[in-house]
Amino acid sequence: MKVKVAVNGYGTIGKRVADAVLKQDDMELIGVAKTRPNYEAFVAVQKRIPLYVPSGKEKDFEEKGLRVSGTIEELISRADVVVDATPSGVGAANKELYVKHGVKAIFQGGEKPNVAEVSFSSLCNYDEALGKSYVRVVSCNTTGILRALCTLNRYIGLEKARVFIVRRGADPKERDKGPINSVVLDPPKLPSHHGKDVLTVLRGIDILTAAVAVPTTLMHTHFVHLKLKHNASREDVLSAFSQTRRIMMVDSSILDAKSTSEIIEVARDLGRPRYDIPELIVWLDSITVNGDEVSFIQSVHQEAIVVPENIDAIRAVTSIESTAEASIRKTDESLGIGRWI
Amino acid sequence: MKVKVAVNGYGTIGKRVADAVLKQDDMELIGVAKTRPNYEAFVAVQKRIPLYVPSGKEKDFEEKGLRVSGTIEELISRADVVVDATPSGVGAANKELYVKHGVKAIFQGGEKPNVAEVSFSSLCNYDEALGKSYVRVVSCNTTGILRALCTLNRYIGLEKARVFIVRRGADPKERDKGPINSVVLDPPKLPSHHGKDVLTVLRGIDILTAAVAVPTTLMHTHFVHLKLKHNASREDVLSAFSQTRRIMMVDSSILDAKSTSEIIEVARDLGRPRYDIPELIVWLDSITVNGDEVSFIQSVHQEAIVVPENIDAIRAVTSIESTAEASIRKTDESLGIGRWI
Repeated sequence: MKVKVAVNGYGTIGKRVADAVLKQDDMELIGVAKTRPNYEAFVAVQKRIPLYVPSGKEKDFEEKGLRVSGTIEELISRADVVVDATPSGVGAANKELYVKHGVKAIFQGGEKPNVAEVSFSSLCNYDEALGKSYVRVVSCNTTGILRALCTLNRYIGLEKARVFIVRRGADPKERDKGPINSVVLDPPKLPSHHGKDVLTVLRGIDILTAAVAVPTTLMHTHFVHLKLKHNASREDVLSAFSQTRRIMMVDSSILDAKSTSEIIEVARDLGRPRYDIPELIVWLDSITVNGDEVSFIQSVHQEAIVVPENIDAIRAVTSIESTAEASIRKTDESLGIGRWI
Repeated sequence: MKVKVAVNGYGTIGKRVADAVLKQDDMELIGVAKTRPNYEAFVAVQKRIPLYVPSGKEKDFEEKGLRVSGTIEELISRADVVVDATPSGVGAANKELYVKHGVKAIFQGGEKPNVAEVSFSSLCNYDEALGKSYVRVVSCNTTGILRALCTLNRYIGLEKARVFIVRRGADPKERDKGPINSVVLDPPKLPSHHGKDVLTVLRGIDILTAAVAVPTTLMHTHFVHLKLKHNASREDVLSAFSQTRRIMMVDSSILDAKSTSEIIEVARDLGRPRYDIPELIVWLDSITVNGDEVSFIQSVHQEAIVVPENIDAIRAVTSIESTAEASIRKTDESLGIGRWI
């Protein structure tokens, strides 16, 4: 019996999760919900994905030749799990509907942690989400930070983290969002919310984060500065990262590449769907270890990094895989994660 | 017997032409030539494309684990046709090698017209390239202009063209090129070179072009203002464009999309390789006709638009297809050109 998955919200995250669900042999995508009949709705129809819309809005879609399969409530009522990929805050408002129909729900990081029973990151706390009804996959930046931190915590032991985030200003498709010529302190008063968000998953460390937004659409980039529980060597850090799925170290001197645009170009050249990079990119040359201090630079593809975590979260809430390792392997093999050059 | 094709230069255009050749049943890609062992060389090896390098540089590649199949001269000597996709000006310097080995060559628009016997655009003058030895595919902007102009000239008759070009500042992969916060007159003195370049293919019209460069990597956009030989209706113009392969009209009100970034997003969502759009995009809502005057806006994906023209040029010089129509149909079907939403 395949898990029946509905995706509510077919934007940047929703459309990627929908495509990923289609590639899982233990899941069935029963439909996606969309409120606006824009080009993404056309793409869903083109891909023969059943489209569900708000009650009363059917005409707006059908006038444009977009076939509607039913209302969003009908979609939810037929699902085992709904992935809520609606804009920040809308997920919380949708929860009532999920409760009403007794459907398990995966929320995104734009929602407050209390929308769910557990905040989730596959490499950190898969077990905590097993069998739960409401799980929140943390945001892209938090997911990127947690991948690195949980890995070093597991292999070496982590005490303290200072992470400085250079955020992309907007997603590639966003035509009206900036900044276009500014570096925006986001927020000006430290810390940024990311540190607190990390603590919802990885508890008991001392963490401070700060963020600025810059004019690019291609990936977030983080300066990561850590204090370990013990002295370690650079080899210890490399070994921890290289043993970890979903972390990809990039050797800039071998590839002659030192920018997010070149990393994205490799993804384009290799034929990755939408040039997506769900892996955390750690810049190998940047990794510097000094006693118990570790510093490095990493980049996060904001559109893609949470997609495999959503797939794992579906497996965790339905208990169809009882270990993180089994789910992660299944997800990564189906999505081609970790194969690079 | 398949035509043996070599691609000299494996950058933005070369890697796309190589991938396109691999999809043709009447061509064989015998290898690509690359001078720098950067990430694109890794991609070629990953795709199992034989890599040829300058004599004496084999070690630079082999030190990085990149298998080299031979020297560039060896590659050229075995080819029936070489597509020269080296940087502007280098093609002309390479010509001697092609002449020495009696290999037919397709040059790109960065070269001066006199590098070749004929400047080429598939919709305009396929016949003139039949059986020639040296053909130059005009640049991306010129190709975009020629697609529209030759179409309206064929169906209605064209007298005069004024085209104002808003150029992308750099390609997505270019990490050091701008402008990043400026509109650059390119050049300040009119006309820009594009008009003269159009005349190398479509002779006898009155044309003036001008260009500015702006901070984006996503497509060139043209204001096209034309005087026809006769009065025409908007329907006449729509009919001409809709009958023409490689021109795609985009209805911004239906799609709720009015930017290059959204058009590129559709290409990403539909799984187009590297999000390439080899079609000329004409913005349907912008088409305005007033007697013998036609104005509209069009967008050109600078990385992709010349790729099908290079494939057609290979067929023309080898005479394996004797008509433009046959070659264009073959190219477009193999590359999925013209299928959209």
